[in-house]
Amino acid sequence: MTKRPRGFIVVTGSELVRGDRRDLNGPFLAGEMLRHGIEPARISIVGDGEEELSEALAEGLEGADLCVVSGGLGPTHDDRTVELVARAAGVGLRLDEELHEQIGAVSRAFAERLGRPYADFEPGVRKQATIPEGAHSLGLAGTAPGLVLEHCDTVVVVLPGPPAELQRLWRSTLESEPVRELLARTKPPDLRQLRFFGVSESTVAKALADAGGDGDGVEATICARDFEIHVDLVVEPGKGARADELSQRLVAPLERQLFSRDERPIEELVLDLCRERGLTLGTAESCTGGMVAERITSVPGSSDVFVGAIVAYADEVKARELGVPPEVLERHGAVSAEAAAAMAAGARERLGADIAVAVTGIAGPGGGSDEKPVGLVYLHAVGHDGSRSRDFVFPGDRASIRRRATVTALHLLRRLLEQTRDESA
Amino acid sequence: MTKRPRGFIVVTGSELVRGDRRDLNGPFLAGEMLRHGIEPARISIVGDGEEELSEALAEGLEGADLCVVSGGLGPTHDDRTVELVARAAGVGLRLDEELHEQIGAVSRAFAERLGRPYADFEPGVRKQATIPEGAHSLGLAGTAPGLVLEHCDTVVVVLPGPPAELQRLWRSTLESEPVRELLARTKPPDLRQLRFFGVSESTVAKALADAGGDGDGVEATICARDFEIHVDLVVEPGKGARADELSQRLVAPLERQLFSRDERPIEELVLDLCRERGLTLGTAESCTGGMVAERITSVPGSSDVFVGAIVAYADEVKARELGVPPEVLERHGAVSAEAAAAMAAGARERLGADIAVAVTGIAGPGGGSDEKPVGLVYLHAVGHDGSRSRDFVFPGDRASIRRRATVTALHLLRRLLEQTRDESA
Repeated sequence: MTKRPRGFIVVTGSELVRGDRRDLNGPFLAGEMLRHGIEPARISIVGDGEEELSEALAEGLEGADLCVVSGGLGPTHDDRTVELVARAAGVGLRLDEELHEQIGAVSRAFAERLGRPYADFEPGVRKQATIPEGAHSLGLAGTAPGLVLEHCDTVVVVLPGPPAELQRLWRSTLESEPVRELLARTKPPDLRQLRFFGVSESTVAKALADAGGDGDGVEATICARDFEIHVDLVVEPGKGARADELSQRLVAPLERQLFSRDERPIEELVLDLCRERGLTLGTAESCTGGMVAERITSVPGSSDVFVGAIVAYADEVKARELGVPPEVLERHGAVSAEAAAAMAAGARERLGADIAVAVTGIAGPGGGSDEKPVGLVYLHAVGHDGSRSRDFVFPGDRASIRRRATVTALHLLRRLLEQTRDESA
Repeated sequence: MTKRPRGFIVVTGSELVRGDRRDLNGPFLAGEMLRHGIEPARISIVGDGEEELSEALAEGLEGADLCVVSGGLGPTHDDRTVELVARAAGVGLRLDEELHEQIGAVSRAFAERLGRPYADFEPGVRKQATIPEGAHSLGLAGTAPGLVLEHCDTVVVVLPGPPAELQRLWRSTLESEPVRELLARTKPPDLRQLRFFGVSESTVAKALADAGGDGDGVEATICARDFEIHVDLVVEPGKGARADELSQRLVAPLERQLFSRDERPIEELVLDLCRERGLTLGTAESCTGGMVAERITSVPGSSDVFVGAIVAYADEVKARELGVPPEVLERHGAVSAEAAAAMAAGARERLGADIAVAVTGIAGPGGGSDEKPVGLVYLHAVGHDGSRSRDFVFPGDRASIRRRATVTALHLLRRLLEQTRDESA
């Protein structure tokens, strides 16, 4: 089997190497490389200093078939990427007249809007229009040009730091000749997903091992993500049948916990299930504080299904806005199966929703007791045809408990929707 | 000025180098290094393969004073970190009897719970108890021991991959002798924050330049984060006066937009302002879908201020649950200053809150028109003593518009609270 081309990613930015900001470019570029049949071998995050960046570039130019560098393309002297890429590739720099005009035009308009003389900007314009010999522009993002350059066996791509700008120029990158030639050498793998909920990562790992394990053109990675277990298969060309067989054997003991074979997040699945059945949806939340509603509404087009939410943080609000009877709050407390059921029914009624899910619990770190510890969460989902309820004591800190309760609420909705669909089938 | 010790971070994990999951360990360790006076020079993310990890370790052991490696400490053959660290340091491996017992005890309990024979686990236990000669255990996370090892001029620390486990063992790491000796060599810098809202990054950059710029023991980084502008100062020992002066000159033209001199996020600031004045808080949300409430409730202890939220996604819910008059919705529409004002007043009343903020807008990508484009957002905050309203057309995609609207709503609350505090002072 031909080995896939290797990709190196170099991300520059002092706020990144210092941990002030999380890097988004590395994961984006790595995922894109993988999708196109290139194996991402390393992501190096360095600051703005010359030494570190030079070292990372030298490694990339030596060890990779595709080396993508992001950041440091601005007009100031701190922006060294272009100069150091040229040095690493052993070529000089030249002023590209066409770029000089393009960037100049953008800067002139900017200077006018700010009421400042263009002369202030000219040195920066010259700098950004100065590119390594042999390099070609991929287009402008603001005033910085993306660049592509071939050096020995490596295709070097230079892109701006801001993620939105990088992602926009990435399309031009894929269409550039050097990158197209590289991609033509490799057939992209087939990527498949299996998504499980309600089972541990080690159980899925054991099931994979029992199914024969990966290898022989089918790579399987198991990842616990967002309290679900994600299995991703990377299937080399011609190994589809092997992948089918492995999937079948892996899924067989875990059928109940398999909830998806694609990349749609759970909130999108729930919305699709509701939409298929012409149902509207709402939530009643306490400890999750609106997180369930926020996830549902993060999906474009959710407004044709989702009608609203009532976040009842204080008990008075549970009583007044959700109609939870005071006796329930007194006898069982706000964190109870009875309160969850009353909240869910109240949400359906007040919001005019066909289906609703309620979550009430103790997110911590305070608020726990011996009978009702931190992490105790009651969930209740109800629709026309039935209901489902669960309760847990989730481990972890406040953020983790809230996130887990949110994901569990969404899966409870899914189970309710699938249950009523199965029953009416 | 003595140069600070250099830190290298090596993070292993195939799902990380492939972009399936975003790395949290790199930023955490980098931030911790910086706080303790070590300069984070590089973060390398590699997969599980031997070649890449060996190369990254070789660079760390050569170029850094402190090299922290995370991941690959599990019991399976894919977990190579300990073996490769030993190889890079040129030392052998030995079975640590005390660790063998500790890890064995944990595994036995686990095996019993799962109803599986301990013999299944013993090879993994032996492996995890096998550590480089000269290394010391930092404690267990599950069955994997964190390790510290000295090699020539480098202190090497090996920690588990899962972020919660890594952060827990990091405390033991700081207390270990080799790391304490390293930290003793350097006085940690003083870290200061200036936080601005309602001004562009380039304006702050210009103000910094006009104030004389950084350098001479005071480093300033400007970062646009979450639609705020964060200025972080790293002040070398003895340079406090210079930092004071630079701060003063930087802040002078930007006093109105400066909102904080510490690291508390805006939601925490708003809660503190409410708590100081004995006020309760609620939200009425449409396009943000619960994101404002979710951010507020992410802060522990928010329940003594925050009473709840009404997410009115459908117009009927705006009318029924927030009391927005049908004439307002008919004449001005759900996305209008009038609707926002009615929603805010309705939230105060229905939730029994002293202060409320309402957000209504068009998050996109659909739903826009010529008069009301995607990104149009109306915000209204109201309390006993007054109100504030703003409207914007935010650029960007759905997620960006929702996040920006959320941050803007929180700052609107802050301005209202500061305004009424100033007026009653």
